[in-house]
Amino acid sequence: MRSTPALYTCLSPALLQLYDVSTSIVVIIDVLRATSTIAEALKNGAKSIIPVDSVSACISLGKQMDVITAGERDGKIAEGLTYGNTPFHYPPEFIKDKTLVLTTTNGTKLLHMALAENAKAIITGSFPNLSAVCDYLVREKQNVILACAAWKDRINLEDTLFAGAVISKIKEHFTINCDAAQMAETLYEKAKDDLYEFMKNKNASHYNRLMSFGLEKDIRFCFEVDIANVLPVYQDGRLVKLIW
Amino acid sequence: MRSTPALYTCLSPALLQLYDVSTSIVVIIDVLRATSTIAEALKNGAKSIIPVDSVSACISLGKQMDVITAGERDGKIAEGLTYGNTPFHYPPEFIKDKTLVLTTTNGTKLLHMALAENAKAIITGSFPNLSAVCDYLVREKQNVILACAAWKDRINLEDTLFAGAVISKIKEHFTINCDAAQMAETLYEKAKDDLYEFMKNKNASHYNRLMSFGLEKDIRFCFEVDIANVLPVYQDGRLVKLIW
Repeated sequence: MRSTPALYTCLSPALLQLYDVSTSIVVIIDVLRATSTIAEALKNGAKSIIPVDSVSACISLGKQMDVITAGERDGKIAEGLTYGNTPFHYPPEFIKDKTLVLTTTNGTKLLHMALAENAKAIITGSFPNLSAVCDYLVREKQNVILACAAWKDRINLEDTLFAGAVISKIKEHFTINCDAAQMAETLYEKAKDDLYEFMKNKNASHYNRLMSFGLEKDIRFCFEVDIANVLPVYQDGRLVKLIW
Repeated sequence: MRSTPALYTCLSPALLQLYDVSTSIVVIIDVLRATSTIAEALKNGAKSIIPVDSVSACISLGKQMDVITAGERDGKIAEGLTYGNTPFHYPPEFIKDKTLVLTTTNGTKLLHMALAENAKAIITGSFPNLSAVCDYLVREKQNVILACAAWKDRINLEDTLFAGAVISKIKEHFTINCDAAQMAETLYEKAKDDLYEFMKNKNASHYNRLMSFGLEKDIRFCFEVDIANVLPVYQDGRLVKLIW
């Protein structure tokens, strides 16, 4: 009998080198707000999303191609870019068939690390597309690394909670010898009845940061399960919606 | 009004550089079994404990000084050394007034990292000396980093649980803007009624490793709160019992 594939949880990009990336599907998790916004934009018909790691790279691509440039710094649209990181900027009537170049810091860095380590496949995960991520992972029957983008390498609650949600849903399909995965699932089980309230009560650092920018509505969106239930997969430098 | 000092939790040595070590007391946490055994040996009258990072360094010191050399590899006393990592090797009638040279991997590495970063003070923590650690931290009124030794940089449950236990007891004396600390405390609150059973039920990796060596008795010892309630503090290359 073939054993079930392995699932690991990596809570910070600084720990990614401990895991066997080249034999695994890597799920990039940047719940507030990059991977939630990516799911929403693709659900609403975006042709593709190009993640880049700096405002200047974003501006540069914007000059070369017919794309929308987007990104924020300190809660405001970055100078030289046109749109922000909020999912509410990308309704269907605006984003359909367009390409979005999005600059994020933590998530993009992690994605490029996974690429450099020759990940078997790279997808992005967030509560808005939780079921799509789980269905894909169960179907593929490959080893999995749930990779949290964290905040400048510091572990955060929201990405860990999403890893826990995935584990809670699909654990019977995987072999899990990973204390970080056990921690993430335990945390999620404690928080799942009201993820937003849990973040608030636990004084979560990125919750506080976004609240100070007046972004409560964004945070609430990012904890809504399956409201943008598509699967972003990284192919040829872009995130596109996987057609099953 | 002076604000309360800051408390952070660092879940892996690979993340230590993210924290401001030079302004903090660093608590080295290596629950299974290094810091538990250190507390027990000092409680039983050991004069001091010299932590070293290799079997060869341990043997070398043993030739130069009148000391007891100890350390294990794969659950057995390492070749060339005399005693093991188990707390049961160090009763008062044996260890009183002696110096122990102990080789451990994860804990010693982390201690040396904290030294290199000029930590304000370095102490060691484990469930057997939980209250001594908490009393000291509250009394000192300095910033604190709860530093988990982990397992080859991978986050583990037992060290995280101990960090959570400390936070649960002393959080009102500190400012905590640290998601890892919130996670550790949440985990501890879930586990505290039976730490041993929690480790077993969660398939904790180091629990499994030690059980495979027949060391259940050691694991149970390491989750006993305050049975070796002394404070090991690092001074001039040695861990000694702090006299208040």
